Amino acid sequence: MDFELATGLAVLERTPPTLSAMLSGLSSAWTDADEGPETWSPYVILGHLIHGERTDWIPRARIVLAQGAERRFSPYDRFAQFRESQGKSLAELLDEFARLRAENLATLAGWRLTEDQLALEGEHPEFGPVSLRQLLATWVAHDLGHVAQTARVLAKQYREAVGPWRAYLPVLDR
Amino acid sequence: MDFELATGLAVLERTPPTLSAMLSGLSSAWTDADEGPETWSPYVILGHLIHGERTDWIPRARIVLAQGAERRFSPYDRFAQFRESQGKSLAELLDEFARLRAENLATLAGWRLTEDQLALEGEHPEFGPVSLRQLLATWVAHDLGHVAQTARVLAKQYREAVGPWRAYLPVLDR
Repeated sequence: MDFELATGLAVLERTPPTLSAMLSGLSSAWTDADEGPETWSPYVILGHLIHGERTDWIPRARIVLAQGAERRFSPYDRFAQFRESQGKSLAELLDEFARLRAENLATLAGWRLTEDQLALEGEHPEFGPVSLRQLLATWVAHDLGHVAQTARVLAKQYREAVGPWRAYLPVLDR
Repeated sequence: MDFELATGLAVLERTPPTLSAMLSGLSSAWTDADEGPETWSPYVILGHLIHGERTDWIPRARIVLAQGAERRFSPYDRFAQFRESQGKSLAELLDEFARLRAENLATLAGWRLTEDQLALEGEHPEFGPVSLRQLLATWVAHDLGHVAQTARVLAKQYREAVGPWRAYLPVLDR
């Protein structure tokens, strides 16, 4: 599927309510559970998504749109959430994510991007030239990857509890 | 995590609103998309979950609880949704799933299951003896597996659109 702004936005606006529906009010036995050492719980994943709203997608899009002399993106800090989420409840993180996402989508809509603008390029610190279109498609796929991860992390908590059905549930061993 | 009724129920009741938040109002370009031949779209997955509400979890739990002479489960039809969803919109499937799930969770709550009942066994057509506890844990993990699958199927539609970021998004090649 080619990236189209309206089609991609439809997913981006659904991610906060999806994660709220999945996680809001759930006990910390679920929301703090992970897949083992160096893996992320739903709580950690939410903090990571919030950090992306603040520092990744829209800030990088601004760099591309400005087409200044320096078009290189700052590297993304994949561990910022371990500092930034400190002291916050899961409910607070869900609210913060929804608020930041709504603001960012309003910003994006206000730009009324043209096809020519979507083709503009910035410079990824590792990949080199990337287009605004690719950046926005990645925002969408990144959301969905973390929604899938959240469901998988929860599922894995029952890896033993399902007994022999584990053979039929590939998500438990992914 | 051991299976506990209240903890498991908390996930089961969240699956219909989670899938509604993710899919309701989304264009069929997303909801009919799949991962290639013999794979399922979000629309097909929903039909599969509905079939489970009708024929799998609660009917099998009844067989276990009855402890009759015949405790063998009927095999589950993994393709029933291709018949049963015919002519139904995605919105209708979301409503039907939510309604059936609510009814089934009311039935389950009404049973006020004891630890002894959770230890009762039925006979799986392939695995042999399985406990009610394992059946209910599987219901939860099965839900979460299909939520993860739904997000993954959507993400994969942008496998090409993300350009070089594909290397950072394992969900696109899972």
